[in-house]
Amino acid sequence: MLKLFHAQGSCSVASLIALEEAGADYELAVINTRDGDQRRPDYLAINPKGRVPALVTDRGVLTENPAILAFIAQAYPAARLAPLDDPWAFAQAQAFNSYLASTVHVAHAHRLRGYRWADSETAFEDMRRKVPETMAACFQLIEDEMLRGPYVLGGAYSICDAYLFALADWLEGDSVDPKQFAKVYAHREMVRARPAVRRALARQTAA
Amino acid sequence: MLKLFHAQGSCSVASLIALEEAGADYELAVINTRDGDQRRPDYLAINPKGRVPALVTDRGVLTENPAILAFIAQAYPAARLAPLDDPWAFAQAQAFNSYLASTVHVAHAHRLRGYRWADSETAFEDMRRKVPETMAACFQLIEDEMLRGPYVLGGAYSICDAYLFALADWLEGDSVDPKQFAKVYAHREMVRARPAVRRALARQTAA
Repeated sequence: MLKLFHAQGSCSVASLIALEEAGADYELAVINTRDGDQRRPDYLAINPKGRVPALVTDRGVLTENPAILAFIAQAYPAARLAPLDDPWAFAQAQAFNSYLASTVHVAHAHRLRGYRWADSETAFEDMRRKVPETMAACFQLIEDEMLRGPYVLGGAYSICDAYLFALADWLEGDSVDPKQFAKVYAHREMVRARPAVRRALARQTAA
Repeated sequence: MLKLFHAQGSCSVASLIALEEAGADYELAVINTRDGDQRRPDYLAINPKGRVPALVTDRGVLTENPAILAFIAQAYPAARLAPLDDPWAFAQAQAFNSYLASTVHVAHAHRLRGYRWADSETAFEDMRRKVPETMAACFQLIEDEMLRGPYVLGGAYSICDAYLFALADWLEGDSVDPKQFAKVYAHREMVRARPAVRRALARQTAA
C-alpha cells in the first residue's frame, strides 16, 4: 500500500494527481508546511530532507517529484502516463520535469524560502522582488519552446502535465498574470478540469 | 551521431563521463561559459535555456543532466549504467540525481550566479557567504543518508556516481573541505581513477 505525504499548495500535488490518474490504491497524509510539520522528528525519519513529496512504498521511501512521477508511470503502465517504450520520448519527458524541478520551482522558492540561500532581510527582499521576473521568464520559455500542445508532450496526456499544472498554479501568487501565456493558461485550466485532478484536489481538502 | 555540448568545470562533465562509460560514439563541443558562449545566438538555437549540457541526437536536442544520464543508460543497456529492469531501483537513482540537480547544484550556483535570483551586490555577497554552509549541509545528508557505498546505489557503478563526482569536485571551490565527508571523499577519488573518467577529463582538455 502506498502512502503519499503531501502539503496543500506545494509541488507534491503533481504526485497526488499522478496517483489519481494511475488509479492507484494509496493513503494520503497531508502535512502543514506552514506550521513546520516537515521539520518534525517523525517526518524527518521518513524524509530526512524535510520536504514533500515523499511516497512510502513496501520497498522504502521515494522522494523528489520527477522520480515519483516517473515511478508512478512505470508502476502503472496501463494508465499510459509516460512514453515508456521510447527512451528518446521518455527522456524528453524527464528533461521537462527536471527543468520544472531545478529551475522553475527554484525561481518560485526565492519568494518565501530565501533563507535557504541567504541570511539577511535585505537579501530576502531583493529575492522576493525578482520572482515575478524570473517566473515570467521561465513560463515564457515553456510557452515558446516546451509546451507542444495541447499537452506538454503533444497529443497524449502525461506526468509532465500534472507537474506543469502544479507549478503554473503558483503564477498569481508570484504576481505573474498567467493569461499572458496563452498556451500555458489554456493547458492549466484543461488539466484542472480532468476528473482525476478534481478528485485529487477534493481529496487533499478532505484529508 | 551524438554531439555533447559541455563546459569545463560545469556539471555537464557527468554527461561526458556517462558517454565514455557507455562506449558511445560522440562528438564533443567544449564551450566557454566564462566568456558567455552559452548566450550566443548559435548556441541558443541549440539550447534556448543557455545552459550546458545539451546532447544533440538524430531525433533532436536533449537537455538537463538527469534526463541525459538516464537516456544514455537506456540507450546503451550493455554498459549497465542504471538498474533499468527494476522500476523501484531506477526511481531511487532518479531521486538521487534529482536531488543533485534541484538542491545541490542550486546551492552551489548561489556563489557565482546570484544574479539569477537577485539584483544587488549586497544580496550576492550574502548568498556567497552562505554557500559553504549550504553545500556542507547537502553533502552531510549525502554522506549520512544517500551514498550507500562503495557506489551511490550500493555495489554497482551507475550514472549517479558520475553525477556525484561532478558536484563533489566543486567542494574546495565552495570553501568546503571534502575530507570531512569520508565516504563522499573516498567515492570521489575512486570515480576519478576510473579509466572512462580519465578519458573524459583528458578529452575535454584536448577539445
